[in-house]
Amino acid sequence: MIATSISDFIRTLTALSGLLDKAAASAQARKIDPLVLTSARLAPDMFALARQVQISCDVAKNGFARLGGVDAPKFEDTETTFAELQARIAKTIDFLHSVKAESLAGSEDKVVSFPAGPERVLKMKGDAYLKQWMLPNLYFHTVTAYNILRHNGVDVGKMDYLKGADLLP
Amino acid sequence: MIATSISDFIRTLTALSGLLDKAAASAQARKIDPLVLTSARLAPDMFALARQVQISCDVAKNGFARLGGVDAPKFEDTETTFAELQARIAKTIDFLHSVKAESLAGSEDKVVSFPAGPERVLKMKGDAYLKQWMLPNLYFHTVTAYNILRHNGVDVGKMDYLKGADLLP
Repeated sequence: MIATSISDFIRTLTALSGLLDKAAASAQARKIDPLVLTSARLAPDMFALARQVQISCDVAKNGFARLGGVDAPKFEDTETTFAELQARIAKTIDFLHSVKAESLAGSEDKVVSFPAGPERVLKMKGDAYLKQWMLPNLYFHTVTAYNILRHNGVDVGKMDYLKGADLLP
Repeated sequence: MIATSISDFIRTLTALSGLLDKAAASAQARKIDPLVLTSARLAPDMFALARQVQISCDVAKNGFARLGGVDAPKFEDTETTFAELQARIAKTIDFLHSVKAESLAGSEDKVVSFPAGPERVLKMKGDAYLKQWMLPNLYFHTVTAYNILRHNGVDVGKMDYLKGADLLP
């Protein structure tokens, strides 16, 4: 069950990549420094776009690494440009493709420990961690990235966010 | 499998209700007309807070009604106050509690048709509809509600959004 949900993370990160492509094109067309967009935020004490993208990646890679008992790639969190953010998403998706279904077998019942902020460590059972922590966090940071872009006049729509859904003809 | 995911919708709508409680208290403390917050939006062509809450409810009630082959309650979409929005969330959660697991048995493979905007009807298989449409849409509108509140200075944090996660001691 948990192994099949990797595709939800890959689909969403791929959609996030598409949103950033549109944002980069919008900056160019409107003659805006792209760093204005990657450093934009919705409130002074919220994370900027670049950090939202970084965390979307981390939720996915660190989550499946914990569930699968494998090492996740470490990133330095230094991305500021759209190209750098796209590279991070691509590396994260590569990692997700590398996670073996066998390593996730039985992880529904595994107890997972993970940091929440700089000082707290939380524990959840694997299936709850996936459904009540990883997925809501993935969507939280991806939707916040979307909202930052919409707030800054980038022409993206909800179908960009939902892209990759298996529609029937 | 689909039946167990009802709890993800109830948990998230309950968290959304908590966000609105904090927003109402914030409006009162800051002497802001609550309607300023319920009509706030992040971009002129995005939905306001009240509509984000209405859609969060609709994704849940209409989604499980389609999957379960049962009738969902109809709402008039006239809510403007926090009390009215809270009532809509409560009615939605009541409906979700009423959906019988038996009615959802086998719905993973059922083909579901649903409107996407005023003119389009889309089709998906039940399990994809849940994971690639209902859940991303639920989180989309709840996170956008959160972002509207944060953008307007309401003191909510991510743990309000994640509230109800089954943390182990």
